[in-house]
Amino acid sequence: MAEITARSLQVLTRGEQIRSAVLAARNAGETVGFVPTMGALHEGHLSLVDAAAAECDRVAASIFVNPTQFGPHEDFAKYPRDLQRDLTLLRQRGCDWAFTPEPAEMYPPGFSTSIDVGPTAAPWEGAARPGHFAGVATVVHKLLQLVPAHCAYFGQKDYQQTLVVRRMAADLNLPVEIRVCPIVRDADGLALSSRNVYLSADERRRALALSQSLKLAESLVRAGETDVAVLRKRMLAHIASVGGVAVEYIAFLPEDAVVETTRIDGPVVVAIAARVGGTRLIDNWRI
Amino acid sequence: MAEITARSLQVLTRGEQIRSAVLAARNAGETVGFVPTMGALHEGHLSLVDAAAAECDRVAASIFVNPTQFGPHEDFAKYPRDLQRDLTLLRQRGCDWAFTPEPAEMYPPGFSTSIDVGPTAAPWEGAARPGHFAGVATVVHKLLQLVPAHCAYFGQKDYQQTLVVRRMAADLNLPVEIRVCPIVRDADGLALSSRNVYLSADERRRALALSQSLKLAESLVRAGETDVAVLRKRMLAHIASVGGVAVEYIAFLPEDAVVETTRIDGPVVVAIAARVGGTRLIDNWRI
Repeated sequence: MAEITARSLQVLTRGEQIRSAVLAARNAGETVGFVPTMGALHEGHLSLVDAAAAECDRVAASIFVNPTQFGPHEDFAKYPRDLQRDLTLLRQRGCDWAFTPEPAEMYPPGFSTSIDVGPTAAPWEGAARPGHFAGVATVVHKLLQLVPAHCAYFGQKDYQQTLVVRRMAADLNLPVEIRVCPIVRDADGLALSSRNVYLSADERRRALALSQSLKLAESLVRAGETDVAVLRKRMLAHIASVGGVAVEYIAFLPEDAVVETTRIDGPVVVAIAARVGGTRLIDNWRI
Repeated sequence: MAEITARSLQVLTRGEQIRSAVLAARNAGETVGFVPTMGALHEGHLSLVDAAAAECDRVAASIFVNPTQFGPHEDFAKYPRDLQRDLTLLRQRGCDWAFTPEPAEMYPPGFSTSIDVGPTAAPWEGAARPGHFAGVATVVHKLLQLVPAHCAYFGQKDYQQTLVVRRMAADLNLPVEIRVCPIVRDADGLALSSRNVYLSADERRRALALSQSLKLAESLVRAGETDVAVLRKRMLAHIASVGGVAVEYIAFLPEDAVVETTRIDGPVVVAIAARVGGTRLIDNWRI
């Protein structure tokens, strides 16, 4: 178990540097946990660092705003970046290595390979963001090769992403355990996201409709409702009553499945995507 | 350097078994070479085992007729299989481990991931065999994860495959060196191939037109010819004079490039594919 107080953080920009550092630790008998991020770190990311530090001897994190997982009209250029703040946070949380490659380190001239995980990547986020999950699967794979950790940590907030990463790791026989950690929320229920900074005060208030509708679905299920059509209708009605939130999808997914259910008859993840002003938000809830 | 006389060959069918064996050797400080094959071994394959044994402390080979790299109308069902003979040959050549998985070990239910290396896989063999190189890249990737060797050995005969594997390994940051070994030929010049067993005596004689045409191109280049159109025409004329050989393509490729050249101004690989009777053959020659 790693100490929680600040220790020395090594910042490495080259793949071979971080690979050598991680392999040296492994060869010395240490376990390594890895937290891949796009920076703009919040308590959601840092909870992953905490989990890695609790379970592994050494912790690596990567900060890389991966261009290939953004669509042509998405927010790659304006995605929040603050490397010095991120490094301070990682240092405070006991991270040993920060891997901060330039795009040319990850995608040198001639790069042209892409990983497609198939049906898991097609619906919901995959349909809304063509190419997104191929970009995610490919960069996560690359990072897992450069940071050959025992365990890699992902947030439940990007639920479909966790399914994509698990599928890719299993299908391609990657020797790593994929761990998924709970969503971290602000006190008012908003799921933490680096994109929340885009929200105006009014939008932020409206954005609460997402988590509120998910909690509503949970309470209805607890009261005995099993019909997904009814649940979805009630969620949409609540969101409409708040106003200013354009729902893209609400999906009821039996845990680890990629086909929606129409009836609640076991553990289910309710996933929602919506636009609030110009900002696209996602959230989900295990019931 | 490994001894060349017979030593004990361990035959393993589960991915975790071969991975554990290879990692144990690595952890003991040994280097490991890996030769992926589809069985039906000939001296071409065995030259790769020899190269691995010469360069590495330990040698692993896999025997797996990979269904995903065959098209629906190709010869997966009738592809030659003789596991006991293959294992005897591997034992004689000093191989330490043979990994012989069943298809369900490589592709369990739910498997759905595919690796696309992009433009390198599109022309020539990729155009003639849709999906072939995605199948190759994916299975080679999986095998390289299950057999985490220092070096992996491939034959120059499948030239475009070597480009695809190199591209995949580089783009996905696989920590392995890809080695390519020369084509092994019968005394009459025919490139060894597991598919040569499909040829009748007459077809086998006609099939020599491939290597003859490649040698002709070399002699013309040595005599000063640099115009690819002239070279191709002379090759096709020779092949036509033999008869019974249907050329699919003749490509002049500057080494490691995937765009054809029209003029010889440096090292070039001349690649040819043709049908002789019902058998599709490929060959190539470095000039």
